[in-house]
Amino acid sequence: MTGTGRSADFVRSLERGLAVIRAFDAGHPELTLSEVARRTGLTRAAARRFLRTLVELDYVRTDGRLFTLRPKVLELGYAYLSGLGLPEIALPHLENLVATVHESSSVSVLDDGDVVYVARVPTKRIMAVSISVGTRFPAYATAMGRVLLAGRPGEWLDSYLASARLRPLTRNTIVDPEALREELRVVREQGWSLVDEELEEGLRSIAVPIRRADGRVVAAVNLSAHVGRGDAATIREDLLPHLTSTARAIEVDFCR
Amino acid sequence: MTGTGRSADFVRSLERGLAVIRAFDAGHPELTLSEVARRTGLTRAAARRFLRTLVELDYVRTDGRLFTLRPKVLELGYAYLSGLGLPEIALPHLENLVATVHESSSVSVLDDGDVVYVARVPTKRIMAVSISVGTRFPAYATAMGRVLLAGRPGEWLDSYLASARLRPLTRNTIVDPEALREELRVVREQGWSLVDEELEEGLRSIAVPIRRADGRVVAAVNLSAHVGRGDAATIREDLLPHLTSTARAIEVDFCR
Repeated sequence: MTGTGRSADFVRSLERGLAVIRAFDAGHPELTLSEVARRTGLTRAAARRFLRTLVELDYVRTDGRLFTLRPKVLELGYAYLSGLGLPEIALPHLENLVATVHESSSVSVLDDGDVVYVARVPTKRIMAVSISVGTRFPAYATAMGRVLLAGRPGEWLDSYLASARLRPLTRNTIVDPEALREELRVVREQGWSLVDEELEEGLRSIAVPIRRADGRVVAAVNLSAHVGRGDAATIREDLLPHLTSTARAIEVDFCR
Repeated sequence: MTGTGRSADFVRSLERGLAVIRAFDAGHPELTLSEVARRTGLTRAAARRFLRTLVELDYVRTDGRLFTLRPKVLELGYAYLSGLGLPEIALPHLENLVATVHESSSVSVLDDGDVVYVARVPTKRIMAVSISVGTRFPAYATAMGRVLLAGRPGEWLDSYLASARLRPLTRNTIVDPEALREELRVVREQGWSLVDEELEEGLRSIAVPIRRADGRVVAAVNLSAHVGRGDAATIREDLLPHLTSTARAIEVDFCR
């Protein structure tokens, strides 16, 4: 886990301590010392030091054998969300939207070629567990990602298209860089993106940008629907007007 | 910021690195090197090493002068939330509840004498910014806190009441340990708590426990309302039945 090519003043202890926090996840909320060592690649002695430090700092709890995270770790991630400001502003609007159209809605930002969810209102329980704030998907295969990519400057996009590894996630995924460039041009022009079973079979998603007062795209908002909802034309007709007015309402509040 | 009395193998670099992440918050989403040094108590040289490490690890972005957190920090806090499992399960139920009663609803857990919000569905925008997942309040002055305290074993509660600093947050806050003990006994017996302007003037909140199959209280769910909604009796009559059935629905899903 410890890379080469780090700068001379790289603090390896910080990298290792953060890796210990990340060793815990939905499938592994409780870990023994040995499990933490195995999942991080640390020696048992090193894993013990980091765990004991995290216990002293109130980030981790232990009964002597099993370790679990404590809610104080939320304060690490929420500095980001509250600094962003957008999720709090967007949430009430997403709730109104979901109550109206009965499909799940999310807001995401672009980070290093991925969309990262920063706000989400699920409808009922379908897929509610698999996607949450912090979830990432490759931008090229998602409607929010295409809206965000289309909002980037041309030079940035050239470099992205030259280096991104476009893998087929379903049989529909656009994996040719030039085809993706053309699709992004269409998205930029029409102001929305509809992705039809390119991320996951059975899933369609439609997204529009959220812009700052200066016109820069800072986030995207989407609605996702199971294919049972109707074909792409129906999705567009039923959902796009609601989605667009939600994005405008968020922008108005965000620019205040 | 670096305490005394730490154990011999305490990893100070981890403590300092986490302090650098926490230096960013809603009021300070962008910081210069000097500001990070000042807010953490680190030297400029040390702050620079930690910031550069966090940049290399993709947790922080910089334009050379200003530093900001990147969405990867969400993965630190969300390991906790996804490991808990409860927020994803509770959210659709909270949304139904809020759509029905038009008041904000939250789920929280007890951590070290505080309630910590782990799920929240606000109604419209009132107070939506000031409370979010990760927010803490002292348990003794909140309805969710009293439900959670009432669910703790007697020995734990004795130690809590002996050591908690009960401060008057409004003129109504119960600050006498024996009066609080009696109130917790009532809460335990009736199965709900109503707190009337003890945390903040103008705010009433009602809460019930969420129990595991073995009966242990693992979380609390609340509805909060401005005093304009009506008096305490009205709150109880209007909201408690809806709140109780929401808690039961969450328990059924959580124990599946």
